[in-house]
Amino acid sequence: MADSWLPFDATEYERRQQALRARMDERSLDVVLLSGPENQYYLTGYETTGFHSFPQTLIFPRTAPPLLVTRRLEEGNAAAAYALACRSYRDDEDPADALAQALRDLGIADRTIGVEKAVPWLTVRLFEGLAHKLPSAKLVDVSGLVELMRAVKSPAEITYMREAAAAVAAGMRAGLAAVRDGVNEREIAAAVFPARILAGSHFVRNPTYITAGPRSALAHATWLGKTLERGDVVFFELGANVRHYDAALIRTAVVGPPTAELRRAADASIAGLAAAIETVRAGIPASEVYRATRDAIAKEGCAQFFLHRAGYGIGIEFLTWIERGGVSLDAGAMSILQPNMTLHLVPYLLLPGLGSVGFSETVCVTESGCEVLTTYPRLLTEG
Amino acid sequence: MADSWLPFDATEYERRQQALRARMDERSLDVVLLSGPENQYYLTGYETTGFHSFPQTLIFPRTAPPLLVTRRLEEGNAAAAYALACRSYRDDEDPADALAQALRDLGIADRTIGVEKAVPWLTVRLFEGLAHKLPSAKLVDVSGLVELMRAVKSPAEITYMREAAAAVAAGMRAGLAAVRDGVNEREIAAAVFPARILAGSHFVRNPTYITAGPRSALAHATWLGKTLERGDVVFFELGANVRHYDAALIRTAVVGPPTAELRRAADASIAGLAAAIETVRAGIPASEVYRATRDAIAKEGCAQFFLHRAGYGIGIEFLTWIERGGVSLDAGAMSILQPNMTLHLVPYLLLPGLGSVGFSETVCVTESGCEVLTTYPRLLTEG
Repeated sequence: MADSWLPFDATEYERRQQALRARMDERSLDVVLLSGPENQYYLTGYETTGFHSFPQTLIFPRTAPPLLVTRRLEEGNAAAAYALACRSYRDDEDPADALAQALRDLGIADRTIGVEKAVPWLTVRLFEGLAHKLPSAKLVDVSGLVELMRAVKSPAEITYMREAAAAVAAGMRAGLAAVRDGVNEREIAAAVFPARILAGSHFVRNPTYITAGPRSALAHATWLGKTLERGDVVFFELGANVRHYDAALIRTAVVGPPTAELRRAADASIAGLAAAIETVRAGIPASEVYRATRDAIAKEGCAQFFLHRAGYGIGIEFLTWIERGGVSLDAGAMSILQPNMTLHLVPYLLLPGLGSVGFSETVCVTESGCEVLTTYPRLLTEG
Repeated sequence: MADSWLPFDATEYERRQQALRARMDERSLDVVLLSGPENQYYLTGYETTGFHSFPQTLIFPRTAPPLLVTRRLEEGNAAAAYALACRSYRDDEDPADALAQALRDLGIADRTIGVEKAVPWLTVRLFEGLAHKLPSAKLVDVSGLVELMRAVKSPAEITYMREAAAAVAAGMRAGLAAVRDGVNEREIAAAVFPARILAGSHFVRNPTYITAGPRSALAHATWLGKTLERGDVVFFELGANVRHYDAALIRTAVVGPPTAELRRAADASIAGLAAAIETVRAGIPASEVYRATRDAIAKEGCAQFFLHRAGYGIGIEFLTWIERGGVSLDAGAMSILQPNMTLHLVPYLLLPGLGSVGFSETVCVTESGCEVLTTYPRLLTEG
């Protein structure tokens, strides 16, 4: 029964685990401890949002099956994952004790152990506790090891992202259609959520940024209940999520006709997006996409409003759709784009006093360019 | 303009900051570095969800005004906070450099610096980077320092939680009303979201757990699209959120008449909840609430299904409504309950093969007992 709840078949999980073992071989790692829900889900299908208060660690030995150490409440979730053994601790026990004991019982407490120092869920407290309890272990940083594998998607993963892209477009359509003079931000948000869910989105936990007027200039903010007035910018950054795979989409609307300043900013963002899409292809450094975006925006006279990188890897979402440790499209980015990497291209402009203006797409890198997964008109909507 | 976006007035922020300074005095701390969005928001009103990929640190010196070190994109959010100076770094710069430089410029790089080792957003990488760049600093763990202040709510905070409690009840009503044979989980979720939002909830980022049938036995899971059948349990754990203050509520429904087993489990959870509410009052240890809950559940013959603590502190939510480092109602909990602590009481039962069964309330501790903030009938709903 539980098997049918998994998002992928056994072949996919075996392939991912073999690929990680090959990388561990190359780096002479006996075991890696994976601390974040995204990497755990990628390798085993273990799925919970209960990672925030109780540490959970996937022990992944090079030559033995993986073992999850988690909170007792999550045992059922571990049982529903792919071929995953589990040791659990009670709510009043110390997770570092449980983890150290599991490593001792596996006979690998004195080996070279990879840990993820850049992953928030390995707290300094847990790390220091582990180092103290396992004085013979050699703890080395392997941040990014699994993230770089995850950056390149399989056909089955891209299928989920395509479904998510359709769901986020449905939410955007409902939200933009609700924009008009006198409507409250709340009513717009209330239209967006059911449209995404009925179009197939699971957990819509990722922030749904819907903000109107000057307050839309705050990055990463929620609606508060503003009633729309003529001239207000309405900024939408939405995601949808199928089996924890996200697609994201940004569009901008205005109540009534836009000012020349807003029109110019919208044109600049749309031009930046077009330039990014035209530039993306396998084999180029990520920084090239940044430069193409920036130059197109600068050509429209809006360079001073572009403070953000041009995009980032997108994929498995538990807390955020951004792939931490994956590809970042910034000025200094050295990563080389590869086929089947998925990116959120974000030529986002911040106009102090006026608000946020942006248009984005979620795309999949191909040998010769990219496929745009999200399909929605790139227009400044006038509501 | 930006001032009016703050959730509290200057008096409230000054009081909170003074209280922290008094605690720093007691512990001879020259400065504390606060890494999590909840503590930053509590002290300054600084509000963003952009904490997940780029570190942001609130430098809080004992004798000088606070300074935020964050990503350039978030500067506007810092400007909207209460009297908060800001230093920012670009997306391609090292946040540890920016943080170390800010401490040097403040002349406090060689002092006793409190850091939050239990807060995920202080990654091991950032901590080690800081320790390396500031060899003369004495870094001491101050995890829980602000969390224990936050656990006790002011009247203004309780007002927001009361509003959130009304919004979550509206969502629960809409969700339970949608339960019937042949309805899809998605339709239930699609009913819950707009009801909460139109009743006043902001960001509904906290997980909305709606699961039906045996899969509801997974802790912390999303709907997938099951069509309800007679006999299915439908489990709801919902939150609503006003100005980042959460109220949470759990209820359980069944399609058609319940089995004797389900009825007994529902009765046990409801009895556990009543016992917890009767027990909570200022001055008792948190573990007493756990014992009262467990005993009431055991009396109904369901002890083997109760694997979870009996509740936890609830309040400011960015990622989760659970107050990490606050009050935990578990068997070993030593904290003494205080007036105006807010708790989510969760006598949650996990029945393997059948699903999750639970009834919960968000309450506020008083001298003589508690006030139940969420008000919704405690009944096993038959849909």
